[in-house]
Amino acid sequence: MARVWLPYADLDEARRRLGGLPAGLEVDCFRADGDDPPSSADEVELVVLPYMRPEGPHVLRGLPSLRVVQTLTAGVDDVLPYVAPGVTLCNAAGVHDASTAELALALILASGRQLDVYARQQEHGAWRPVPGTALADLRVLVLGYGHIGQAIEARLRGFEVASVTRVARRPRSEPEVHSVDELPALLPYADVLVVIAPLTPATERLVDATALARLPDGALVVNVARGRLVDTDALLAETRSGRLRAALDVTDPEPLPPDHPLWRTPGVLISPHVGGASSAFPPRADRLVKAQLERFAAGEPLANVVHTGA
Amino acid sequence: MARVWLPYADLDEARRRLGGLPAGLEVDCFRADGDDPPSSADEVELVVLPYMRPEGPHVLRGLPSLRVVQTLTAGVDDVLPYVAPGVTLCNAAGVHDASTAELALALILASGRQLDVYARQQEHGAWRPVPGTALADLRVLVLGYGHIGQAIEARLRGFEVASVTRVARRPRSEPEVHSVDELPALLPYADVLVVIAPLTPATERLVDATALARLPDGALVVNVARGRLVDTDALLAETRSGRLRAALDVTDPEPLPPDHPLWRTPGVLISPHVGGASSAFPPRADRLVKAQLERFAAGEPLANVVHTGA
Repeated sequence: MARVWLPYADLDEARRRLGGLPAGLEVDCFRADGDDPPSSADEVELVVLPYMRPEGPHVLRGLPSLRVVQTLTAGVDDVLPYVAPGVTLCNAAGVHDASTAELALALILASGRQLDVYARQQEHGAWRPVPGTALADLRVLVLGYGHIGQAIEARLRGFEVASVTRVARRPRSEPEVHSVDELPALLPYADVLVVIAPLTPATERLVDATALARLPDGALVVNVARGRLVDTDALLAETRSGRLRAALDVTDPEPLPPDHPLWRTPGVLISPHVGGASSAFPPRADRLVKAQLERFAAGEPLANVVHTGA
Repeated sequence: MARVWLPYADLDEARRRLGGLPAGLEVDCFRADGDDPPSSADEVELVVLPYMRPEGPHVLRGLPSLRVVQTLTAGVDDVLPYVAPGVTLCNAAGVHDASTAELALALILASGRQLDVYARQQEHGAWRPVPGTALADLRVLVLGYGHIGQAIEARLRGFEVASVTRVARRPRSEPEVHSVDELPALLPYADVLVVIAPLTPATERLVDATALARLPDGALVVNVARGRLVDTDALLAETRSGRLRAALDVTDPEPLPPDHPLWRTPGVLISPHVGGASSAFPPRADRLVKAQLERFAAGEPLANVVHTGA
């Protein structure tokens, strides 16, 4: 019987969420919420890391029998340093598509239609319309075209946008995806830039001062990926001047310090990294965990393998 | 040469917005912005009423040659009392679809994902995630299935909602539209109720205490139609108790007085009647005005006739 750690409160919750425990596995629960790890550290072979617990990956260094790490995030940049060469790493690509893609739309629409301004006016009981920018007729550039980029495009489809331009590391056709080399030439035609590329050495600060300067006046920068894809100081300068707007679910640094000027820059809307964390997450995460455990127990190939330890 | 009044600042703006003035018509400009009406009141035959100017319709009573009134709103409840029996009334159905439908989505998404809470936290530099409800997996009931109701449904399509239920005065099939008589039986299955029916004697306070009580716990009430479709006191009671949430672009009364308790009820998001007023509006309004003027000048049947004066 192989031992696995699952990020639930107890076996009852695990049973309920997964519709029963998978046969052939012994389950311990580990949520990285301050308690000690389970006593089965020497024998655990598969760990599903708890979601959004920065201290979670640390535990991976003390597990000699570990063969598989399953994250509940799509990005694995935070986890990679803790994964030994012989261990297979699986991400949660797909699980966050719905939640993150709809937050991207929420940020675009709320920023354009000034819902953040109205939320603050509400405290003063002020009925004061301000001009709103519709998403309709705008040209949208989606930077990053994995699962979530595609889910964003699916949601944009109903909104009468003028165009959707796709940019990714690897150019493709049908649908046309431009190479990131073409980004500088495409930015001047983006009324909305949605950043949803993975954070890698190649994408870090990809959206820097030069890139931002190429956007047209009044353009909106949306980041639902990782804060470090965008140069914060450059974005601050462009939003402070009023030339660009921004709607950010991720920042650099993160959390954004209370006195950071980005918080109080007009035209900047910030949500505290909640792209993947919504009611859409648990059922989709549970479905992935269940399917992976069944594959693992049966000795079948796992899905969502980022790198294999074999 | 028939005389018409158009809601532009001057003839230069009219020419620019319409791509030239239509042949065969003499144009005066009237924006109901405090100036006197044009001196051609005795001869004007067609008036395009200015958008969102409550005092606009009053002028219609002093125009003896009037044959046609064109509104720039979809609803004409405010205008009807000022339109004499012999005058043809045309609305702007279609012009606001994109703008209003996307505001409905903006309100649903911003409310569910707590963007109003984050906008207020922003003032304090507070990075504090709160649980968010995704639109994915929810059951949406669209009450009113005209142009805008259909545009809302088109936008919902990409969001992985569990279901969209359509309700209107007139039941239909393909797609299935339920009769408003079935509303009480359908409300218990609506996680999101979107109100976009016209205001008529039959729909006034259609969403009353009894209807609201039928919604499931935690349901969201969205109103992008007219405030008087919903019983404000009943909605206040249900949101104050925390049982329901609301995202409202229209209220009753309107504007909502500064001391009205709805402003400061948690779970209530209010925008000040800006559904139709966004950057999506002017190009669509101009296209309608231009087409109607061409039809009028040519003696052809007008579009969007609400009632004919013949």
